Amino acid sequence: MTNSQRKYFAYKKIIDNKITSVTKKLLPESLYLPIKYILSGGGKRIRPVLLMFACEAAGGDPKKAVDAAIAVEILHNFTLIHDDIMDNAVSRRGRETIHKKWDSNIAILAGDNMVGMAYQCLLKTKTSKLSEIIEEFTEGIIEVCEGQGYDKEFESRTDVTLSEYILMIDKKTSKLLETCSGIGALIGNADNKKFRALKNYAHNLGIAFQIQDDLLDISGDQKKFGKQIGGDLREGKKTFLLLKAIELVKKKQDREKILRIAEQKGLKSYSKVLINDIKRIYHDYGVVDSAQKEIKKFTDKAEKYIEVFEVRESRIMLKWFSRMLLGRSF
Amino acid sequence: MTNSQRKYFAYKKIIDNKITSVTKKLLPESLYLPIKYILSGGGKRIRPVLLMFACEAAGGDPKKAVDAAIAVEILHNFTLIHDDIMDNAVSRRGRETIHKKWDSNIAILAGDNMVGMAYQCLLKTKTSKLSEIIEEFTEGIIEVCEGQGYDKEFESRTDVTLSEYILMIDKKTSKLLETCSGIGALIGNADNKKFRALKNYAHNLGIAFQIQDDLLDISGDQKKFGKQIGGDLREGKKTFLLLKAIELVKKKQDREKILRIAEQKGLKSYSKVLINDIKRIYHDYGVVDSAQKEIKKFTDKAEKYIEVFEVRESRIMLKWFSRMLLGRSF
Repeated sequence: MTNSQRKYFAYKKIIDNKITSVTKKLLPESLYLPIKYILSGGGKRIRPVLLMFACEAAGGDPKKAVDAAIAVEILHNFTLIHDDIMDNAVSRRGRETIHKKWDSNIAILAGDNMVGMAYQCLLKTKTSKLSEIIEEFTEGIIEVCEGQGYDKEFESRTDVTLSEYILMIDKKTSKLLETCSGIGALIGNADNKKFRALKNYAHNLGIAFQIQDDLLDISGDQKKFGKQIGGDLREGKKTFLLLKAIELVKKKQDREKILRIAEQKGLKSYSKVLINDIKRIYHDYGVVDSAQKEIKKFTDKAEKYIEVFEVRESRIMLKWFSRMLLGRSF
Repeated sequence: MTNSQRKYFAYKKIIDNKITSVTKKLLPESLYLPIKYILSGGGKRIRPVLLMFACEAAGGDPKKAVDAAIAVEILHNFTLIHDDIMDNAVSRRGRETIHKKWDSNIAILAGDNMVGMAYQCLLKTKTSKLSEIIEEFTEGIIEVCEGQGYDKEFESRTDVTLSEYILMIDKKTSKLLETCSGIGALIGNADNKKFRALKNYAHNLGIAFQIQDDLLDISGDQKKFGKQIGGDLREGKKTFLLLKAIELVKKKQDREKILRIAEQKGLKSYSKVLINDIKRIYHDYGVVDSAQKEIKKFTDKAEKYIEVFEVRESRIMLKWFSRMLLGRSF
């Protein structure tokens, strides 16, 4: 095990322990039980660890960033709960989603409450830059919502372009990673150059990460992925793959299948045969290749920003993080 | 028109103007159109005006509290959108609710985004007490969610006590008014005595206000009230009136009707006959009288706290506000 990996597991443990203590003995149970359920659902804690890594790379003490780390993890989980309602998702991290296990009302309310809880954690951070941190955090929330707004809007549109797609995932996925990195940098008292580098690093990683997520929707192992395979297809999501396929697939029969998914707001029912068919099309026309190239492009772009850091240990840590993030099969 | 009334209208106008400018030209439209719709829906702006009044009573310049005032109004409207989904409400301020006019997904997302927008407004406040203000605000969100959690939990319970009811409305309604008053006091640099007085004033007003809201559900004028009359009965809400009726109504036939509402999680369909019947029961058994007495009790309690203020103008203003709030037929 490398040093970076050891660090990741150590920070993850700190986060896991602290996050359970946040929800202990809170009432009403009808509200906090689902919150405990999702927060203990075994996420990879990518965002809070990134926040702590960024703080450390900036030259700060990552332990001072734990409250903020918990805040971004709670915030991320809030977005999962509400997105799952909107996307009719039935499973998440291999378990039932909250609106399935309880109901939509509870899922809405649990999510709302978590936004408050997240700010409460963030406010515990001892720093002279609290208002900047809260600003970053708040901007993160708004951008995530705008991104989700575009995502839902795109579902019923058939003329979405790849650059619109990039705008959407920039807001929906990338922004929150950037927020994490930015907040970590602020807590670590980063100078402006490092602050910008850490934000740009996370931003590009986020784009790569989302395209990979799109890819895993058709090629992932459901157990490791935690979500139902083909969920994006079912919902008619305008993923990188679908948009690329619209661009590349010319043969009439195949093109019709692709357009049917794009136009029909997804599959009305879950069909393994059709999903396998789409998989084949994605492979045959180089759509999967294209996605992999795009992932590499943005990862390389992200890693360029690591060069700013003089301390070798920081560079190794950030590089390990990006490789871990994109090497995931989860 | 009294001075206080003039002031109310002047502050309301400032808020109305500013609030439209906040949502101008934002994208995606699918997200911001419903936000504009609810924010321009002609609310009474009770919460932001209270915030500005509290700031002024504390000795501060109410103009410095405008951003925070907008923040609490946006926050309040976020809770309305999400509560309306959960309560299946069809109308609000005489117009269709967002989840009816658009759909639940858009209503969820619009609400979420508004929490971010609210913090963004709050962060614009020029004050040395920003972190205390954000803390107050954040506590407000959490308590409102917990209150709504109890409210929904109580719908399916038949053994809710009046003291549980008070705990619920304390969180659900009262707390946000307290938050407004507290934030206004902080911006106005209130000393501790005035800060406490302003919070307690708003707290007790909030309880009175909610009991009155319960009363208006059966006795209000639908046009002025803006909401569907009998909505609480339909949803099986454990209102002050229903709980008091369970306590007071003894005659078998009448008691059965009351218990049916309490036990059946409300009326499955909207029946004007049954609502009129319940109205009669509430009148015959002194339930309405009881509610009115309770409203007066909490209003008196609230107004006791006004005495702390040396400046006569402040006392008059706060008294006018509480009378306006409880004298409403809306």
